Amino acid sequence: MTQTLILPHIERLSPYPMGERPPEGIRTIKLNQNESPYPPSPLVLKALRSIGEEELSRYPDAVNGGLRAVLAERFGVNAERIFCGNGSSEIISLIMKVFVGAQRRVALPDPTFALYATAAAVHQAECIAVPTDSDYAISIDGLLNSGADAVVLVNPNAPTGRTLPPAEVERLVSRFPGLVIIDEAYIDFALEGTSALPLLGRYENVLLLRTFSKCYALAGARVGYCFGAEPLIAALEKSKDSFNVNAVSAKLAAAALQDREYAKRTAAAVCRTRDWFASGLQALGFRVVPSHTNFVLAEPPSGPGAPTARELYGKLLERGIYVRYFDHPRLADKLRISIGTDEELAVCMAALSELVG
Amino acid sequence: MTQTLILPHIERLSPYPMGERPPEGIRTIKLNQNESPYPPSPLVLKALRSIGEEELSRYPDAVNGGLRAVLAERFGVNAERIFCGNGSSEIISLIMKVFVGAQRRVALPDPTFALYATAAAVHQAECIAVPTDSDYAISIDGLLNSGADAVVLVNPNAPTGRTLPPAEVERLVSRFPGLVIIDEAYIDFALEGTSALPLLGRYENVLLLRTFSKCYALAGARVGYCFGAEPLIAALEKSKDSFNVNAVSAKLAAAALQDREYAKRTAAAVCRTRDWFASGLQALGFRVVPSHTNFVLAEPPSGPGAPTARELYGKLLERGIYVRYFDHPRLADKLRISIGTDEELAVCMAALSELVG
Repeated sequence: MTQTLILPHIERLSPYPMGERPPEGIRTIKLNQNESPYPPSPLVLKALRSIGEEELSRYPDAVNGGLRAVLAERFGVNAERIFCGNGSSEIISLIMKVFVGAQRRVALPDPTFALYATAAAVHQAECIAVPTDSDYAISIDGLLNSGADAVVLVNPNAPTGRTLPPAEVERLVSRFPGLVIIDEAYIDFALEGTSALPLLGRYENVLLLRTFSKCYALAGARVGYCFGAEPLIAALEKSKDSFNVNAVSAKLAAAALQDREYAKRTAAAVCRTRDWFASGLQALGFRVVPSHTNFVLAEPPSGPGAPTARELYGKLLERGIYVRYFDHPRLADKLRISIGTDEELAVCMAALSELVG
Repeated sequence: MTQTLILPHIERLSPYPMGERPPEGIRTIKLNQNESPYPPSPLVLKALRSIGEEELSRYPDAVNGGLRAVLAERFGVNAERIFCGNGSSEIISLIMKVFVGAQRRVALPDPTFALYATAAAVHQAECIAVPTDSDYAISIDGLLNSGADAVVLVNPNAPTGRTLPPAEVERLVSRFPGLVIIDEAYIDFALEGTSALPLLGRYENVLLLRTFSKCYALAGARVGYCFGAEPLIAALEKSKDSFNVNAVSAKLAAAALQDREYAKRTAAAVCRTRDWFASGLQALGFRVVPSHTNFVLAEPPSGPGAPTARELYGKLLERGIYVRYFDHPRLADKLRISIGTDEELAVCMAALSELVG
């Protein structure tokens, strides 16, 4: 009886697949959600300790004015062109609701961050998958020729780690007549000059997403933001839930943003560890997709008796090492491993060496 | 050009009207958002101080397992029948998305909490307004005969403060064939026995919403929850944003729930102040709607030269006293005043006495 209370397209939904959460109280190595292996800046902890009772008991600023002002200052973008969300995940969902919906189609590179397809399905939008090439390079022509009303570009892409050069991104933005959603969750680990931020002032059809969950080590606080032309931001603003970013997280995010040096230093540490880890994997016979992110996508060596990627995933899990395996035709022969600390990845490397050796 | 990027029903949306936020750094008396005038329990502050770095840097539990377990224990309801959201506002929006949407109609008493109509419009649901009587009593027959697919019952209702007796609520739930959404945001200020919680085990078509924003003094943290039959909760769970309740707020809400004594004591204090304040208003010639909430809806005395409700609202604002005025045909002759501390309301009463005297 209650079945009929649920809308049919929701009834048909598959839940968004995500990395497992290790049980509490057991020592594990968690390399499956691309979190920061480092704590947030000391300024964040200081801000947390300074939260007062009234900040808890009163509703937060509904338009997130404080955080938008700090972001505006930091990036030189007018606050009217900035939207803040309860993590990027809220923003992704809201974009599907406000700009795509049941009436329109959205083109996504395949593979890309799976939440886009889930959010599209929740909002009855039709997805057009545009296959990447054998090295996971995104086809700008494929996106341009998709006939979609909106396109998504995760750059650097997840879970592949690959980056599109800025000229290619601009070719997409300048030629595509609809909305271009650029997700730069991993931009702090990419080469300088990768960001599409300079395009913002020149094109009105771009939404550029960023997050505090990766480089800023605030995945637990849920804060994402996006830049875009004023009419797009205003449309998101009036469609969002009334108080979408809580008072504590808004303050923590603002504090994290103030400590640029710390963010730079931890991102550099992650990149150094990543490059060392990728070389080590190659030495073990893995094929590693070049990464500009805080994870690597790697294909274990094949050969008689060699464990498959799925088997390796299971064997690592038995040892308390959580990595990511995707049951997806383009990814099923690979593992995605988040960049942890040097110590964590040394343990992971030793386990892999034993398992594939 | 960007205008065409926005879906037409979003383009037409009016933003949700909410109480003004006083400017920072100025001493004001804020009685316009029904917040708690008291701080959260000391256990909440203790929980806040104990948040560790890893709780910030790691993604929170996507299914809010910890908080659901505490709620399950506290209310004797299976955790599979509990959903947690980023404030009730996220849950209200999600309900419109999952159960109503563009295909269905939702009946709402008029007046009621305005966010329901806003959330319905965002999701292209058609609203059917069912007028309350001249004393704001909700018409169960009106809701039953609305022909809607879902009905909303805010009980006690906002912004009127009126309560429906449990037998009437059960009459609605037992006879209405569709989804009945019961919002009990103000239940802690109502008479014992008002809650529809006992109906939950017997009816499969109910969603019962609660919040930590009122009696638990956590409006800034954004945590709401709802009870319902398992298939309804499962549908909400798979449609929500992936990590909707942040790690800090989940912990604060769980701590608040542990301190039942404190919540009882502050709710009792609010009710005492409310009854004193209502009597005082009546002595000034106001007509006061009987309230079972943490606010009163009151009509100033009329007569030659007497200020209108809107004028009173403006004059209070000039004195730094923020109350709520609704530009709504059924409410335009009244003010809604949240119950603050005794001291705050004494200042408010003195101002009103001067203004209407």
